[in-house]
Amino acid sequence: MNKGVLFVISAPSGCGKGSVLSLVTETNSNIHYSVSATTRKPREGEVNGVNYHFIKKEDFEALIQGGNMLEYAEYCGNYYGTPARPVKDMLNSGKHVMLEIEVQGAMKVKEKCPDAALIFVVPPSLDELKRRLLKRGTETEEVIAQRLAQAENEMRAAKEYDYIIVNENLETAAEDLKTVIRAEELRNRGCI
Amino acid sequence: MNKGVLFVISAPSGCGKGSVLSLVTETNSNIHYSVSATTRKPREGEVNGVNYHFIKKEDFEALIQGGNMLEYAEYCGNYYGTPARPVKDMLNSGKHVMLEIEVQGAMKVKEKCPDAALIFVVPPSLDELKRRLLKRGTETEEVIAQRLAQAENEMRAAKEYDYIIVNENLETAAEDLKTVIRAEELRNRGCI
Repeated sequence: MNKGVLFVISAPSGCGKGSVLSLVTETNSNIHYSVSATTRKPREGEVNGVNYHFIKKEDFEALIQGGNMLEYAEYCGNYYGTPARPVKDMLNSGKHVMLEIEVQGAMKVKEKCPDAALIFVVPPSLDELKRRLLKRGTETEEVIAQRLAQAENEMRAAKEYDYIIVNENLETAAEDLKTVIRAEELRNRGCI
Repeated sequence: MNKGVLFVISAPSGCGKGSVLSLVTETNSNIHYSVSATTRKPREGEVNGVNYHFIKKEDFEALIQGGNMLEYAEYCGNYYGTPARPVKDMLNSGKHVMLEIEVQGAMKVKEKCPDAALIFVVPPSLDELKRRLLKRGTETEEVIAQRLAQAENEMRAAKEYDYIIVNENLETAAEDLKTVIRAEELRNRGCI
């Protein structure tokens, strides 16, 4: 049996990556969406194992020390990361794994797993991203300005990714993601 | 405008590569099928510019000496190869170029153009290939044995290719080829 493919997907906030992913993973049972682990407390409505695996700081640190985190980062005093074991088990069982993580984590995964396929979702333009963030109406102008500056920054990292999907239209972007997944199944990983 | 992608497709004889290619290139006007040049005489029914560009030996050698052949080989005293200029022009105009060439040539292209996407079409098995060659009924048993030995040899080269398409079913193989072409359009070539 062929091993699954490790996919990593990143995008600046507001690019609609979550919606694209839902459309694709919900219709393809061969893709396992990897839920990250974190040491931060669950927010209202967040479910353990769905939004995050909420784990204790000492458990997270034990995973780090044992070399058992595929990638992790500390943010505002909390850890966020991907334990390696479930990812490996899933790939060995022939399932693909989709990691939805930010740029720093993605670069770490690429370093450890050069065979991983890295996908970056971008908005049609920064102007369009601004329009989308304003339309949400959930953030202050200051936060939106920060988001945009961060997006511009993150988009520079796009050059390190294997694929770039422009999310102009949700259905087209989802088709593009499906295409990348199928093409990576056809990609020669030296197993022939 | 984005540059086109250079595709190289190879397959052991009898794998149905030609039929797969026809299904794909005939429905995608953005792919230019590159016709090879040769110094051998046209056979009956062969049309200049369709089957080959039939050119003079001195013209072919001038192209070689000028460094203007993307790849070439000598076979039974005749040259076969791909002049670089039309391929470059086509790619610069934004069209994809499809080179249908054998393994040696493909390796030379990969060396000169690391961004090229190399696709290898394989039969479901060597047994199936044998059945297909016998079914054609156009070759003697000896020629079929040679073809099979050559196929086995060529399939070892498959490990150098970027994609492997198993031609079990013509329509599925054509869909796979279309998927690879679209995915390569999404592939990041550092132009962002």
